[in-house]
Amino acid sequence: MKYGFGIDLGGTTVKIAYFDETGTMLDKWEIPTNTAQGGQQILPDIAASIRQYITSHGIADSDILGLGIGVPGPVNAKGMVNKCVNLGWGVFNISETLSGLTGFPVKAGNDANVAALGEFWKGGGQGCDNMVFVTLGTGVGGGIVVEGNLLHGAHGSGAEIGHLVLNPKETVPCNCGKFGCAEQYCSATGIVRLAREFLKTTSLPSTLGQVENLTCKDVFDAAKAGDPAAVAILEQVYDYMGMLLGNVCSTVNPEVVVIGGGVSKAGEVLLEGIAPYFQKYVFHAASGARFALASLGNDAGAYGAFKLALDAFG
Amino acid sequence: MKYGFGIDLGGTTVKIAYFDETGTMLDKWEIPTNTAQGGQQILPDIAASIRQYITSHGIADSDILGLGIGVPGPVNAKGMVNKCVNLGWGVFNISETLSGLTGFPVKAGNDANVAALGEFWKGGGQGCDNMVFVTLGTGVGGGIVVEGNLLHGAHGSGAEIGHLVLNPKETVPCNCGKFGCAEQYCSATGIVRLAREFLKTTSLPSTLGQVENLTCKDVFDAAKAGDPAAVAILEQVYDYMGMLLGNVCSTVNPEVVVIGGGVSKAGEVLLEGIAPYFQKYVFHAASGARFALASLGNDAGAYGAFKLALDAFG
Repeated sequence: MKYGFGIDLGGTTVKIAYFDETGTMLDKWEIPTNTAQGGQQILPDIAASIRQYITSHGIADSDILGLGIGVPGPVNAKGMVNKCVNLGWGVFNISETLSGLTGFPVKAGNDANVAALGEFWKGGGQGCDNMVFVTLGTGVGGGIVVEGNLLHGAHGSGAEIGHLVLNPKETVPCNCGKFGCAEQYCSATGIVRLAREFLKTTSLPSTLGQVENLTCKDVFDAAKAGDPAAVAILEQVYDYMGMLLGNVCSTVNPEVVVIGGGVSKAGEVLLEGIAPYFQKYVFHAASGARFALASLGNDAGAYGAFKLALDAFG
Repeated sequence: MKYGFGIDLGGTTVKIAYFDETGTMLDKWEIPTNTAQGGQQILPDIAASIRQYITSHGIADSDILGLGIGVPGPVNAKGMVNKCVNLGWGVFNISETLSGLTGFPVKAGNDANVAALGEFWKGGGQGCDNMVFVTLGTGVGGGIVVEGNLLHGAHGSGAEIGHLVLNPKETVPCNCGKFGCAEQYCSATGIVRLAREFLKTTSLPSTLGQVENLTCKDVFDAAKAGDPAAVAILEQVYDYMGMLLGNVCSTVNPEVVVIGGGVSKAGEVLLEGIAPYFQKYVFHAASGARFALASLGNDAGAYGAFKLALDAFG
């Protein structure tokens, strides 16, 4: 039996997990992400933590097949990082650098793409060959698996589906500088924004008007309780989500769409809400895609990172 | 040296080409597509034509690596055809059937996808790993290459980018039954429709009002001559094309976008027209995609079909 590590590198913590080659997570821990001085200590810290784990557990180097790592920024299939603003990183080959520091072969990918691979392998996308993954959180991220392989993209920014433009007439800019991106309507932040705008002009009765610091969860809870304005707000949101996922599925034609991120905590009601709008927008030949909720939570990135290594070196 | 055949199966003719393994097209010819009786003679006709060619040219069966075929409908990676309305075909495995008829291994793909592979290999996409191909003709078709491999999709309908919805408020239905598909604005037919609508209401002077049976070429010609209405119409068209290709590139992140089909005969002016709108819509990390015109014309399908066979059996 061989073993390996899956690393999910975030802006504040690094999640590291130890796997056997069947994909069983045997252990996991976190270390802080040291972004001081252009993030130059991040990879040495990771290498030291892994080396310490191996030594303290009496693991032979020859039993380690390799490491995989998910990075919060664009990474191409060859491991070239193209600026991770959160970490202070510029352009360099992370696979070569981390491999030099640890002595193990390393495969890297973008964090959202790597989480997609985790869900594909051990989560909501199990048993499929082609998957679209979308995370509806503070922002909207994505990952695409084509015949078992992650779509990295030429510049390491494949599947940036949060920035598909759905509404070219939007007057408020997205964080990315464009206007009318999916993220402006389908993220937790976007849903709250749509709700606030709707409540300003609607004559529908609503309990939401009295809520201070309105959250996405408030909107879902109110809709569940039958609040007419909340129901109408979510119909707008589902329409945008259906257009986003319909267009992505007309492009990719997956077997399954897996939805994760904080908004997906709404559960099955979210999938049921999106379904009719998805059918309105998707091309008929791609309309058979099944919808599923993500099931690995915060571990998706570590699973996917290890899978990258397993596919490359296992 | 090994050899093979690339077959481009259309609704009226079948184009067959003979290649050596370097991709040099040594010969090509056409036979009619016999769509009578549910298209049951189509594959026997193709097999007979290839068999006759081999015999009359004294080619040894052992020198043939295989056949590739592009089909006007959904085909998945395993060769399952899922209804080709134009041909009268239902659901069956075309690779197995044609292989049984010829004695050679067969690989099949959707015609637009296969044409994309041809352009990727020997046309406008040469030298790249990731490509988006779009044909702007009577309709709008597409093909996507990810790290050298065609994106077939789970149901054989990958890259149906002509049916991405760009304008959910459209009141005229697309041929597919949905509203606001890219094909309604970016195809030759769509451009003429936009022109007619624009001319009804504009106060801009135009020579186009007098043109009987207005064509897409008329609009491009008038714009080249400085006709203010034609220029304004094409700005609308370029905006839609920029939104389509921007959204597809934010999803796929290719190195190159190759544009073919009748509308691409407008030439470089088309690429220059789309460029600023593409930048308006595409996610910044995917904005480096280069634009190129397709260069293989009607032979793209045969090249791509042979490449399918070469990749599988060469």
